[in-house]
Amino acid sequence: MARLGGCWAFLCRCFFQYETPKILLIRSKKVGALNRLVQALILAYVIGYVCVLKKGYQDTDSVLSSVTTKVKGVALTNSSQLGLRVWDVADYVIPPQEESSFFVMTNLIVTMNQTQTRCPEVGVPERAASPCSLGAVNGYRSVQTGKCVNFSDSARTCEVFAWCPVETDSEPPNPAVLANAENFTVLIKNSIQYPKFSFGRRNILPDVNTSYLRNCIFDRKRDPHCPIFRLGDIVSEANEDFQSMAVHGGVMGIHIRWDCDLDMPESWCVPKYTFRRLDNKDPDNNVAPGYNFRFAKYYKVADNVETRTLIKGFGIRFDVMVFGKAGKFSVVPTLLNIGAGLALLGLVGAIACGDSNASSVNVEAAFSLTVNSWHRVLCDVACYV
Amino acid sequence: MARLGGCWAFLCRCFFQYETPKILLIRSKKVGALNRLVQALILAYVIGYVCVLKKGYQDTDSVLSSVTTKVKGVALTNSSQLGLRVWDVADYVIPPQEESSFFVMTNLIVTMNQTQTRCPEVGVPERAASPCSLGAVNGYRSVQTGKCVNFSDSARTCEVFAWCPVETDSEPPNPAVLANAENFTVLIKNSIQYPKFSFGRRNILPDVNTSYLRNCIFDRKRDPHCPIFRLGDIVSEANEDFQSMAVHGGVMGIHIRWDCDLDMPESWCVPKYTFRRLDNKDPDNNVAPGYNFRFAKYYKVADNVETRTLIKGFGIRFDVMVFGKAGKFSVVPTLLNIGAGLALLGLVGAIACGDSNASSVNVEAAFSLTVNSWHRVLCDVACYV
Amino acid sequence: MARLGGCWAFLCRCFFQYETPKILLIRSKKVGALNRLVQALILAYVIGYVCVLKKGYQDTDSVLSSVTTKVKGVALTNSSQLGLRVWDVADYVIPPQEESSFFVMTNLIVTMNQTQTRCPEVGVPERAASPCSLGAVNGYRSVQTGKCVNFSDSARTCEVFAWCPVETDSEPPNPAVLANAENFTVLIKNSIQYPKFSFGRRNILPDVNTSYLRNCIFDRKRDPHCPIFRLGDIVSEANEDFQSMAVHGGVMGIHIRWDCDLDMPESWCVPKYTFRRLDNKDPDNNVAPGYNFRFAKYYKVADNVETRTLIKGFGIRFDVMVFGKAGKFSVVPTLLNIGAGLALLGLVGAIACGDSNASSVNVEAAFSLTVNSWHRVLCDVACYV
Repeated sequence: MARLGGCWAFLCRCFFQYETPKILLIRSKKVGALNRLVQALILAYVIGYVCVLKKGYQDTDSVLSSVTTKVKGVALTNSSQLGLRVWDVADYVIPPQEESSFFVMTNLIVTMNQTQTRCPEVGVPERAASPCSLGAVNGYRSVQTGKCVNFSDSARTCEVFAWCPVETDSEPPNPAVLANAENFTVLIKNSIQYPKFSFGRRNILPDVNTSYLRNCIFDRKRDPHCPIFRLGDIVSEANEDFQSMAVHGGVMGIHIRWDCDLDMPESWCVPKYTFRRLDNKDPDNNVAPGYNFRFAKYYKVADNVETRTLIKGFGIRFDVMVFGKAGKFSVVPTLLNIGAGLALLGLVGAIACGDSNASSVNVEAAFSLTVNSWHRVLCDVACYV
Repeated sequence: MARLGGCWAFLCRCFFQYETPKILLIRSKKVGALNRLVQALILAYVIGYVCVLKKGYQDTDSVLSSVTTKVKGVALTNSSQLGLRVWDVADYVIPPQEESSFFVMTNLIVTMNQTQTRCPEVGVPERAASPCSLGAVNGYRSVQTGKCVNFSDSARTCEVFAWCPVETDSEPPNPAVLANAENFTVLIKNSIQYPKFSFGRRNILPDVNTSYLRNCIFDRKRDPHCPIFRLGDIVSEANEDFQSMAVHGGVMGIHIRWDCDLDMPESWCVPKYTFRRLDNKDPDNNVAPGYNFRFAKYYKVADNVETRTLIKGFGIRFDVMVFGKAGKFSVVPTLLNIGAGLALLGLVGAIACGDSNASSVNVEAAFSLTVNSWHRVLCDVACYV
Repeated sequence: MARLGGCWAFLCRCFFQYETPKILLIRSKKVGALNRLVQALILAYVIGYVCVLKKGYQDTDSVLSSVTTKVKGVALTNSSQLGLRVWDVADYVIPPQEESSFFVMTNLIVTMNQTQTRCPEVGVPERAASPCSLGAVNGYRSVQTGKCVNFSDSARTCEVFAWCPVETDSEPPNPAVLANAENFTVLIKNSIQYPKFSFGRRNILPDVNTSYLRNCIFDRKRDPHCPIFRLGDIVSEANEDFQSMAVHGGVMGIHIRWDCDLDMPESWCVPKYTFRRLDNKDPDNNVAPGYNFRFAKYYKVADNVETRTLIKGFGIRFDVMVFGKAGKFSVVPTLLNIGAGLALLGLVGAIACGDSNASSVNVEAAFSLTVNSWHRVLCDVACYV
């Protein structure tokens, strides 16, 4: 009981007890100016950088996005192998749908009527160094039977078990077979949400109507908000040449940026499109350039034998990436930043005090005032360095 | 040498020399209370916000995740075009596998037995405005031959070279052909890792056994941890109508959130599922609504002619997104936060000192004490504003 | 006017007016050392942690990446069902291309020559509990006709309308059919960019030439920068057994980390590869293990009837994930950190002042010096706790 009382007394005493340094009021243009200068810097930082630039008064949320794409276009080719042929979206977009990316085939090497059987390997003449041996895996597509057969009148190669005839892996045609892909268009539908602010928007802006959408093509100057892009434009905006890119293929990035200040009118929140080539095309480091892959169409012919058409497809993959950050006024971050700012100012005041001492030494020698904060800091550095 | 000695002497002097303000002990309920109030705010911020809310004592790691999905279900349709037909997963999931997304076809427009040949274009009657001209690309799928032919007894259209017969691009069937997709189920297997803490977990919780897994269906109330979801439930949880969504297609987001406090028992770390529609369905802005794409199945018929069945597939793409952040006690962040907190308190003390001056002016006029920190700050603001 | 003059006078007065505490110079080894110790801690934090560890003087940017993959390898299988068969990349990579992931089929269950017709369901003997009823959906692939027919001499099952014959859903073959996939290789082409610094690089390093690239295989010791990986090595590096993983399938993560200090020579910026298994293989929680999906190849046979070959493919999906952060010297962050560091030091000075008081009480009783900052803080804590 007594102890409790004692503790209580202690608490009260320490609760209402505080200290204050004896303070001296001095006037001096020089030091006052310095003092203000430091404070001005702090204010500039707090107001200019934290508040204006970094929007410290806003709560932020990152974007939630969905992308769907639809390519349109048709190409007409006429080759000795395939004859006259029309290519439409179902022919050149592989796979038909992806989450946030689409591939347009621009060039191809076709090997028709392959069946599982034996045939001479292509382009690998038998050498004493590597005789044909049963079961030896040949490159990446065939297994040797051990025999050695005539590939042509001149050359003999190992016989292989494979999808025959095996593909002749040559350079892709130049110009590209589907060079016309440059004129294909793609409609990109991008809906975004900022869940924290329950704010949603799509790249087909509210003021767009169907007739406009049917005819427009994105143009940074004239139609910056048209969601339909010409593939050739996308590539040229990235300072690349479509036709040369079409031969070996590549990867393009379509970046959609949604930076929205939700304290502003909603209509100010519009997507910005930028395009860049993502894969490397560095001429002096062009090992394994471009982008291609193999796929096959499987058939069964009359006598129920499975045959396939192997296609080595070169093309451009377009990766659609959506970035974005939304900010909206919120109390908590505002208070935190104001608090931090005031604290900083208070600190400066303290440092300024120190500065003032420095000169007040000259002013009033009566006081044993000594090195100010900055001197102290420098001195410390001297001590540690 | 002498210089060295001098420097040494200087270092020692400045090393053991320090300053202290003359401090005055004052007791005053009013200022003491203010002093405590400011300190209370700081403590509330440090303890309540930094420590409790933001868990400042924890080191954090972001989630590493893998998602695999498996759709199950069968639909029976009976149309004049296709006759009685069963649709299983290999028929309606395109492509058969994706990284963190799956598409379920709910509606389709089929154009059978297309071959590369000539035929009249559909629905584009020749107009004097646009006469048929050789090579003119017609829409997105055919190339004009320049001739004009009978499309029907009544109408004449341009002859085109294309996959014939060309698709009749009409409105999708309503109700959707595969309306029964509402009852399909999907098993979502999601394994996550927090590498920094070498902590791994999956959404099939340890206490789940095979028999439960064979029969359960996710239900927010009864089975919140069953990883098998009925597509209809996913859509309805997002306050959408599956049947209307199935007609034109759309994009759904399946969000799995793993926020784990690893200082707590592992069994508390469970996934939270939320569903939302990602694409736009704003009725007054429904330009190009839904989600669909074209793909084809290629055949070779008896006389080795390639034919294809073109399918314009409407459906719902489900994007599975995994979010998560794990926290675990760590020394470094704890120390940093404690340090920052103490520093802040010390600062407050300083400000409080200022406050005390304000009143101590009344207490002891002998000291030329002046405006306290807050006055100073305000004064400064006045000077700059 | 007068008021304006008064305000002006006020502003000038407050502008050049500042305060300074009366300060007392004291020398004491004990307190001086403590003072220095605290400062040393601060300096250690500012220099060691902020500057060296966290590189506070750098502006940072996060990586922008594109990944393309190319699998190579061939497998020879000989089964009673399929006979002797060669599998190449077009056969076992499904779908043929994905954005940042690729799937290699290692095991499969094939059901050939399915057509849409009636047949007895497999493995679901009719029970009184569940009699065959017209239209009842049977599992996930067939619809009952209501009849009950002989499945074999011994067993009777419900007749179903489905892709017949229905798949016999048994355990996958063990060892895996394409066990040889262990020797397949994958070329991963990864180009990264740090847009803010307009810095680009690819994982095929500049000093790599075509001949090296044709023969090299990634090896953490000998060839740490070869972008060609043997699938078996990837799995074994993650401490998994490829053959057992190949049976039921799984998901592997290929992590490419690009942490670049752009203040250093560019050649120091090289990718680090790590591999880990992403899906769960916890033996005591192996509900629904592995990874598999169903897909079909569609054919039309002579009499224009559509048939398909259903394949339940088990395999390993490799998810390529690219991480990275680049830092480069920048003025703004440097100034901010220096400023914060000095502020902290100034504060410490203040605290040290407090400390010195503590002892100077004993030194010079003439001054009414009281509890120092630390005492104050502790006292405060006592007041609130």
